[in-house]
Amino acid sequence: MRNALLFIFLFLNRSSFAQDEHLIQYAKPIVGTDKMGHTYPGATVPFGAVQLSPETDTIPYEVDGHYNKDVYKYCAGYQYGDKTIVGFSHTHFSGTGHSDLGDFLIMPTTGKLQLNPGTADHPENGFRSGFTHAAEVAEPDYYKVKLDKYNILAELTTTTRVGFHQYTFPKSDEAHIILDAVYGIYNYPDKNVWTYIRVENDTLITGYRQTNGWARTRTVYFAMVFSKPFNSYGYQNTSKKEVYRGFWNKFNFNKNFPEIAGTQIKAYFDFKTEEGEKIKIKFAISSVSTANALENLQTETPGWDFNEVKNNGQAIWEHELHKIEINANKETKENFYTSMYHAFINPTVYMDVNGEYRGLDQQTHSGVMVSGVEPRFTNYTTFSLWDTHRALHPLLNIIQTRRNQDMIQSMLEHYNESAEHMLPVWSNSANENWCMIGYHAVSVIADAVVNGSLAFNPDKALDACIATAKHGTYDGLEYYMKLGYVPEDKNGSSVSKTLEYAYDDWCIAQIAKKLNRPQVYDEFIKRSENYRNVYDPSSGYMRPRMSDGTFKKGFDVLNTDEPGFIEGNAWNYSLYVPHQPEELIKMMGGKKRFTQHLDSLFTMQLPDSFFANTEDITRDGIIGNYVHGNEPSHHVAYLYNWTDAKWKTQDHVRMILKKMYLPSPAGLSGNDDCGQMSAWYILSSLGFYPVAPGSGQYSLGSPAVDKATLHLENGETFTIIAKNQGDKNVYVQKIILNGKTLERDYITWLEIMNGGDLVFYMSDKHR
Amino acid sequence: MRNALLFIFLFLNRSSFAQDEHLIQYAKPIVGTDKMGHTYPGATVPFGAVQLSPETDTIPYEVDGHYNKDVYKYCAGYQYGDKTIVGFSHTHFSGTGHSDLGDFLIMPTTGKLQLNPGTADHPENGFRSGFTHAAEVAEPDYYKVKLDKYNILAELTTTTRVGFHQYTFPKSDEAHIILDAVYGIYNYPDKNVWTYIRVENDTLITGYRQTNGWARTRTVYFAMVFSKPFNSYGYQNTSKKEVYRGFWNKFNFNKNFPEIAGTQIKAYFDFKTEEGEKIKIKFAISSVSTANALENLQTETPGWDFNEVKNNGQAIWEHELHKIEINANKETKENFYTSMYHAFINPTVYMDVNGEYRGLDQQTHSGVMVSGVEPRFTNYTTFSLWDTHRALHPLLNIIQTRRNQDMIQSMLEHYNESAEHMLPVWSNSANENWCMIGYHAVSVIADAVVNGSLAFNPDKALDACIATAKHGTYDGLEYYMKLGYVPEDKNGSSVSKTLEYAYDDWCIAQIAKKLNRPQVYDEFIKRSENYRNVYDPSSGYMRPRMSDGTFKKGFDVLNTDEPGFIEGNAWNYSLYVPHQPEELIKMMGGKKRFTQHLDSLFTMQLPDSFFANTEDITRDGIIGNYVHGNEPSHHVAYLYNWTDAKWKTQDHVRMILKKMYLPSPAGLSGNDDCGQMSAWYILSSLGFYPVAPGSGQYSLGSPAVDKATLHLENGETFTIIAKNQGDKNVYVQKIILNGKTLERDYITWLEIMNGGDLVFYMSDKHR
Repeated sequence: MRNALLFIFLFLNRSSFAQDEHLIQYAKPIVGTDKMGHTYPGATVPFGAVQLSPETDTIPYEVDGHYNKDVYKYCAGYQYGDKTIVGFSHTHFSGTGHSDLGDFLIMPTTGKLQLNPGTADHPENGFRSGFTHAAEVAEPDYYKVKLDKYNILAELTTTTRVGFHQYTFPKSDEAHIILDAVYGIYNYPDKNVWTYIRVENDTLITGYRQTNGWARTRTVYFAMVFSKPFNSYGYQNTSKKEVYRGFWNKFNFNKNFPEIAGTQIKAYFDFKTEEGEKIKIKFAISSVSTANALENLQTETPGWDFNEVKNNGQAIWEHELHKIEINANKETKENFYTSMYHAFINPTVYMDVNGEYRGLDQQTHSGVMVSGVEPRFTNYTTFSLWDTHRALHPLLNIIQTRRNQDMIQSMLEHYNESAEHMLPVWSNSANENWCMIGYHAVSVIADAVVNGSLAFNPDKALDACIATAKHGTYDGLEYYMKLGYVPEDKNGSSVSKTLEYAYDDWCIAQIAKKLNRPQVYDEFIKRSENYRNVYDPSSGYMRPRMSDGTFKKGFDVLNTDEPGFIEGNAWNYSLYVPHQPEELIKMMGGKKRFTQHLDSLFTMQLPDSFFANTEDITRDGIIGNYVHGNEPSHHVAYLYNWTDAKWKTQDHVRMILKKMYLPSPAGLSGNDDCGQMSAWYILSSLGFYPVAPGSGQYSLGSPAVDKATLHLENGETFTIIAKNQGDKNVYVQKIILNGKTLERDYITWLEIMNGGDLVFYMSDKHR
Repeated sequence: MRNALLFIFLFLNRSSFAQDEHLIQYAKPIVGTDKMGHTYPGATVPFGAVQLSPETDTIPYEVDGHYNKDVYKYCAGYQYGDKTIVGFSHTHFSGTGHSDLGDFLIMPTTGKLQLNPGTADHPENGFRSGFTHAAEVAEPDYYKVKLDKYNILAELTTTTRVGFHQYTFPKSDEAHIILDAVYGIYNYPDKNVWTYIRVENDTLITGYRQTNGWARTRTVYFAMVFSKPFNSYGYQNTSKKEVYRGFWNKFNFNKNFPEIAGTQIKAYFDFKTEEGEKIKIKFAISSVSTANALENLQTETPGWDFNEVKNNGQAIWEHELHKIEINANKETKENFYTSMYHAFINPTVYMDVNGEYRGLDQQTHSGVMVSGVEPRFTNYTTFSLWDTHRALHPLLNIIQTRRNQDMIQSMLEHYNESAEHMLPVWSNSANENWCMIGYHAVSVIADAVVNGSLAFNPDKALDACIATAKHGTYDGLEYYMKLGYVPEDKNGSSVSKTLEYAYDDWCIAQIAKKLNRPQVYDEFIKRSENYRNVYDPSSGYMRPRMSDGTFKKGFDVLNTDEPGFIEGNAWNYSLYVPHQPEELIKMMGGKKRFTQHLDSLFTMQLPDSFFANTEDITRDGIIGNYVHGNEPSHHVAYLYNWTDAKWKTQDHVRMILKKMYLPSPAGLSGNDDCGQMSAWYILSSLGFYPVAPGSGQYSLGSPAVDKATLHLENGETFTIIAKNQGDKNVYVQKIILNGKTLERDYITWLEIMNGGDLVFYMSDKHR
């Protein structure tokens, strides 16, 4: 750990930019924790494997055998409106619309031991405690709250693989720490497959929990150390009866017995505390073994100084946030750095300090090169690619270049390990959960390969892309390959799939072009035209088509649940040809008609029925019929750049930035979706956005900051200046790149990475 | 594998003794498969990790929520009286009274696919098939049966870690191989914790099954290869609903999809076969990973020649059986070599070919020395020590010396890995199931240490023995240590425990004496006297005592379920002071009275109620009130050696040998108990038996063979000759050891291991 600390120290000092202003003051983990954002307020380091955060309720997945709609609200375990906390668990998704995790809830209590969490209405019937936001602090890698029922001050911080708890107790002869392995997020019946807890000695606990959740087969191993020996301990085992155990009552298996296993297990540890005494817990996780978890713990947190760990974590955040320094007002800074914070949470590290990780083949793999001790790459999980290929990965490819390359390497390992031999769709903890559609890993790979951002073998990557795109039994692909579209009578959401496959195929073609593999290029560039096959000229919309070639009868262009579409209606989805906007515009009747279509999107009045049926967003997430709270339209405001009303990109982007992002608990208009919403904010604020990742181009919009300095990993600096910008001065008059007027609507990845200056001259009048 | 084969070849040829007669012809795996023996007829190599054997029914653990008494009959999966076979699974216990295992049932079928096994009454409703014993062959490492319903000839053989199946099909367009991971032995609700199956390609399947059985947390990984590619495949998943899987119907997850997971999974593979076409399957297991299972498979069975594998396996059995060559009639040879066969099945290898194994700490351990590639020891599991410390391990210490030392090393690893830091009680697949009483691992260790049979660190072994014997929270030990006995009001089976602890403590004292640790000796030799504390002079029996010092009121000396006793009544258990028979005799009133007590044991008439209440044995397993079908009295016939009627040891032993062992399916009078019953037969047939393992002495009885030649691993030969012995000539007139008259009732381990001749002169008159 001396080495690790030294490394951080050197690393931070090596940075070539000043750190005069503390930026973590602007990053607000609490943003998005109210209602739809599905973020969490707890502690994590950038891309950390551990996300240690409070849970404000235990929501059963089913009530009376039916799905409990409330469970959706608790994707991240915390809802700002709640009044009680049930404990602090170690793993969370940031901003997802389904969920999982919530592993190993820890709760400190005093008085009579209670192992039932109780209910929000009657917290006195369980171990949960009331709390207030007044006594709550949420900062990057630091969370603090007063547990009112017990007068315990809870503080949390983390390293990449270790959660560090500090509980300040009152004087008590009956102080307890509860380790609840029953709790989980999206905790449906039989989600807990197996749990094993082992008391190694009077301060060290190890074990694991295996769950069948969004990740079908997932095991989290842990090692947990107390700063002070417990006096006694025990378990509550509410698993179904274990037949044999009853026969041999050689021990009291539930009290001071060093191991327990089953599906529904809670453990507790008893202490005596003095007034103000701190009990600290270090809790490390691993996907491989308890031995690895313990090694993670000992390597990352050798000591007991909570503040040291917290300061290190916050220093890392400072370093990451400083990668983009902006001049802007306080609210913009809060929005911007909160977005940076949320963009740098997912994907998450999925590898132990010794380089080992669990693969999709359920084998232990090592990321360490045979000849050396340094990992050849860092393995990541939590790839919500339908969301994040759009803006998060293109952002990371600029500002977290090496990490983005490792994420691609992780996708290639996923491909190698998976039984289906496909790139990830939605990768969660060495599992593929098949959530959403497309094969958008190819977009992330294209965005790297085309730009030459390589730390992986691009030809092997292309092979993986091709194998994935030709996996006939996947989600209508056999029909798509035969007919040129997915027929709705064979496979649902057929329009959305056809459009997204066409874009993905274009990405593959771009990789093939770059790698000089013309046959592959020809095949996939042809496939990339398939969007044409679901365009219905008679209605002017993309429309579901049947296997006999006819369009499906009956068609509601506003209905989000309309057959043929997923997470977006026909009005929005008809604009999804990110790789060929010119062709789309031609197909839809030319620039004028297309502009009208776009205009109407942003201005129309939707019927109330729309909101009843639309998932993942609130009325706040809508501008007209434009749904920013969901992803399919994230590029849409930039499409004006291909019309004669480019200025509408500029004012629409600014409108979205202003309306859809607020630095408050309810400030996110929809799920943050593992950073995609936040990445949209960051890039759009800087004045550019990747309409078609894989093109190498970022379409220009309207910068919302006065100045931004991008500190790149290659040592270069790219500076954006928006002269005279303001709430009204949203229109771009001219753009100067490195001293020369820029006569196009985009800049390239290479121009950014080479460093330089991009100066926007802003005005309240559009050109 | 070339190397492995070469090794076997050299190994067998290196043997210094002739192999003129094939001994496997006398070893009958079918013995004990009817009723109470609980052996299985299938294929295994000595101490093999795989025991590949037919299952004749699928017995639910519960019927209408109540324990199903029939489940007990199926401890080994097969009952001779059954008319149908449901398939062949890869793991079995030999002769146990509770059970587990039965992993991965394979069944070949033709015609319409059926994935339900059907019932014995209506086999047509499922995949099970009728069979007859006329079309069945069971030899060491070879099993053959005709599956009448399908006209499929099934043949099985194994290597240590691989089951090799050969199915000869009729012509069929609908041939199937079913892989049933739902089936299991003692298959109570929720026993199957998780199953994962992965189709790697059209001949290779991998996966694992995790169960919560007699082993609480046990995972068996497998790799399975077909000799011929299947045409298609699919699954039946009757697990409880997996919530997420329904959302994303990207595939037909049950047909030609390469992976499946859940709790209740069956897979099937479809073929077309020609008349007489053989489909072969190699199925390897591992406790560590599917990669290790595959390595086991490729190393042990590189080719597809069924007969080669069978011949190798049978050659290994020949080698093992030839370690004791006897001159005797055919029935005696059948009994003897069947006993040798059963004695050399358990404990079982629990380590992969690369030296890795799963420990009780659920970590992967390596038995390979850091500096080398040869394992420093072979790890074993399946320690039924309450049974096997009596005669099986003392037998192995003579004739499988190196293996027995490795078994002790395995126990020490168990001690190191276990959360309780105790030596094994009943070790099953990296789990402690706490079955039965005592800490008899110390007996096995003492038997090795006292004799100087060491390949482990004896001082560390003694430390482990002490820690185990002082584990206060274990099964009444804290009271035992305080009061000198286990009080029945605090902990049940108190007399049995007190007596067995006292013997175990004497074993520890013997180790301490040998290692010159006098303080330990003094402490434990004192504890070894504790049997006195449960002797009730007023009744003349060992009797349960209360914590206030009084004897428990009410006392039935014949009742097996009497409080204070387990698996034996007071009449039998009162004789359990194996380490101090002289003192026991004194305590019970002297030799004459004691002889009368022994006589009455063998001659009394038991009431019918006795049989209703006595577990694990039939009326056939009883001689008078002497229960040979269970273990606590296994030393009792030899106790006459401490009286003035030593000749009664001789005729009683011969009577037991004759009445209790027959070379027929129902030939075992009780559970073989992992070889303990068989080891009793072998040693008693040779003319000696270890009344007190740890003494270094084997008490002399009456040899039932004309001659026996023991080929020892140290290269020495020990020959036993019983001149003039016969059914009536059971009495020993004199004994000559290496040319000198032996004037005592025992020989020592060292005398045997040094080689030599032991000549008994037999007569029909006792001295």
